Amino acid sequence: MMIDAEALKAIVGDDWVITRRDQMQTYLYDETTPDQRLEPAENVVVVKPATAQEISEILKLANREKIPVYPRGAGTGLVCGAMPTQDGIVISMERFDKVEEVDKENLMIVAQAGVTLGQLLAAVDEADLLFPPHPGDEGAQVGGMIAANAGGSRAVKYGVVRQYVKGLEVVLPTGEIVTMGGKLLKNNTGLDLMHLLIDSEGILGIITRATIRLYPKFAGTATLVVSYDDRHKAINTVPRILQSGVIPMAIEYVDHDVITMSAENLGMKWPAQQGTGHLVLILAGSSEDDVFYQAETMSDVCQNNGAIDILIAERHQEQADILKIRSEIYSAMKPLIAGDSDITVPPASLGKMLDALDEIAEKYETKIATIAHAGDGNFHPYMLKELVARGVAEDVKVEIYKAAIALGGVVTGEHGVGKIRLKYLELMMDPKQEELMRGIKQLFDPNNILNPGTAIR
Amino acid sequence: MMIDAEALKAIVGDDWVITRRDQMQTYLYDETTPDQRLEPAENVVVVKPATAQEISEILKLANREKIPVYPRGAGTGLVCGAMPTQDGIVISMERFDKVEEVDKENLMIVAQAGVTLGQLLAAVDEADLLFPPHPGDEGAQVGGMIAANAGGSRAVKYGVVRQYVKGLEVVLPTGEIVTMGGKLLKNNTGLDLMHLLIDSEGILGIITRATIRLYPKFAGTATLVVSYDDRHKAINTVPRILQSGVIPMAIEYVDHDVITMSAENLGMKWPAQQGTGHLVLILAGSSEDDVFYQAETMSDVCQNNGAIDILIAERHQEQADILKIRSEIYSAMKPLIAGDSDITVPPASLGKMLDALDEIAEKYETKIATIAHAGDGNFHPYMLKELVARGVAEDVKVEIYKAAIALGGVVTGEHGVGKIRLKYLELMMDPKQEELMRGIKQLFDPNNILNPGTAIR
Repeated sequence: MMIDAEALKAIVGDDWVITRRDQMQTYLYDETTPDQRLEPAENVVVVKPATAQEISEILKLANREKIPVYPRGAGTGLVCGAMPTQDGIVISMERFDKVEEVDKENLMIVAQAGVTLGQLLAAVDEADLLFPPHPGDEGAQVGGMIAANAGGSRAVKYGVVRQYVKGLEVVLPTGEIVTMGGKLLKNNTGLDLMHLLIDSEGILGIITRATIRLYPKFAGTATLVVSYDDRHKAINTVPRILQSGVIPMAIEYVDHDVITMSAENLGMKWPAQQGTGHLVLILAGSSEDDVFYQAETMSDVCQNNGAIDILIAERHQEQADILKIRSEIYSAMKPLIAGDSDITVPPASLGKMLDALDEIAEKYETKIATIAHAGDGNFHPYMLKELVARGVAEDVKVEIYKAAIALGGVVTGEHGVGKIRLKYLELMMDPKQEELMRGIKQLFDPNNILNPGTAIR
Repeated sequence: MMIDAEALKAIVGDDWVITRRDQMQTYLYDETTPDQRLEPAENVVVVKPATAQEISEILKLANREKIPVYPRGAGTGLVCGAMPTQDGIVISMERFDKVEEVDKENLMIVAQAGVTLGQLLAAVDEADLLFPPHPGDEGAQVGGMIAANAGGSRAVKYGVVRQYVKGLEVVLPTGEIVTMGGKLLKNNTGLDLMHLLIDSEGILGIITRATIRLYPKFAGTATLVVSYDDRHKAINTVPRILQSGVIPMAIEYVDHDVITMSAENLGMKWPAQQGTGHLVLILAGSSEDDVFYQAETMSDVCQNNGAIDILIAERHQEQADILKIRSEIYSAMKPLIAGDSDITVPPASLGKMLDALDEIAEKYETKIATIAHAGDGNFHPYMLKELVARGVAEDVKVEIYKAAIALGGVVTGEHGVGKIRLKYLELMMDPKQEELMRGIKQLFDPNNILNPGTAIR
């Protein structure tokens, strides 16, 4: 296949096309561990458009020449979703970097797709508003977060990214620029294509702009770090919290070893020194008193379920540090692990899933460290590199998946299918639904040019 | 077309097929006003299956014979969405009436599609849990509420029905029985067909069972009825409430004349006697103190924005009465009106939309009474019957739609497109998205047998 770099330059300008391999390394990979990731294709051109119109022209060209196109945000994904695995064009969204409007009257932000989570949070904070979820790496871009329906911490009370997306501008694979939704809290006009685009992992269209719902900043917040000397006790506390009447914004579980490693990696200090595992609860309320009441209720629940120590962080910086150490765990763990998993089970089955992880670890004579967005039933068990050397990494992974599915769970709660989890879909998907997904893909993208080999089989 | 009633009886049993016209009247209409509604077809058979398997067999028969099939919940819709407008089979879901499980551990309810909202609320209440939204008529069925993505009151804080649906069992138009999702708070496996089925108005499949997220019951609730002598002042208070930091579960606006008519119709008494319009705020909090604090904050905001009286209902029965009088407004208004509308605008444009309604009323020398799920930007303006006699009802309706669209709004926020709003989609839809919707319909339902002529053009 010939990719006509001159034709691409004619669309976006000479400065925004990269053809030299040594200059495009950062565009070829994502954050998937080396042991799991695929190889990028040989013949790749990176293009950096600045407008939806330019993307439209690139896609029309790609359709004429049948060239695969890989839309790319910040490359923070963990499933090779943005990786160009066939010769083709990478469209980097980095120039879509404007927060166009923070609408304090409607409590909405309008952001271009390349705006990072960090930028978004800063703009929202400056307007004295709140974007509740915190999908991990603050370098992630808005378009990627929506295409992947990112989750992360702080999704317990108000939900994952899907719940916040109210409007999209999308360039369809065939080049049409369309808008869906708006600054609207209710919208029932026809089939909801916007909700189909959310979590479509870049195979149905390229998101160029989003309208996202915000909340007023809560009058009070607090972060509790609760220590346990047995992770089963910690995990088994979670359903009790969910049933208590107080709904935290986040209920995270972290192994003590893992979180202290993340703190050290950042040159920071994890506040809790006791125990082998911790729950991190982020509380938000309508007043300081309300938060105090919530913190007391949470303390009672945790103490009644075996907690050995409870720290309460109230100052803004303390709370931000805890969230940062939690959010950056993957950076610390990545060099040590073969890979992580993203299984999700019904919240009341958290304890059973942890039992299953213990059994699998025992069977394979390994240690499975884990963290969890526990309030969402979403585990990230870590598989050590030694499993690869021993040739059992794949067996361990599949056993973890099967255990989750047996509990009514799924193989991915928030990271998505990408290109590396396609083969595991057969563990849980029925053929008819996969046929419908392929049909939808064909309808949107008749030449199968957009992010081929991703999300669906 | 011949509909073989004997073949249908062989599937569902002799007792569950109605062929006599005089016995099927209640299955032929929904709650659309007579001035707006369509005529049911002549040759209709009503079938009442009890299992997904029976529905599958009916759909396979219908595909062989190319017979239109109209899935039907309680018929509480307002857009003829469930009406059989071509000769065909009505599938009534009334025998799918079991609450299968209230899962207190996972805070989920598993209900068959024919369970009514009233049944659902009772089962949830008995388990000391909460289903936050209240989509109006408590006779509505779960399947219909999901197929229509119902909204109603109490959607401000946690969203409309879409946000609560975590799992579905669906019979596809071609007869396959599939399940989507589960008791899961996060699930990113492939394209999200479940979110495509939600709000598909019965054209992509028949929902037979749903898994729905619940919340713990709030420790405290209160309902405020706030009176104004000018509805503009009331409506203009709403953005101030949304920005205050307290998020009510519901922010409703009602004209005084309209709400007192509903109370009288029910033999009840509306508690507020002052003013020409009222806001109704439903507050929920983590403690009695929290609710008290929220109520004080709300009172301050409303008083600073021109409220003349504020009543606070705290007893359960008082609050239930207020919600009931609000929810049953349509029953009182229906005999008096040509039709209502369901426009939705960005919340900060509520005031401008009200101005537009006033201008349209003045231009056509009529009165446009209105209620609104104001916190969601969702108005239901009422068009009086006299407009039909004067031959301008259609003009008034289109002007209302155009005004909403000009403000960034849509022609339906929660009632859906059904069969009577299809012609207004051209005011706002782009042809490419409509083409994609038709393609998806064709993919799911190649013979176009399921609820034809609904939701999409």
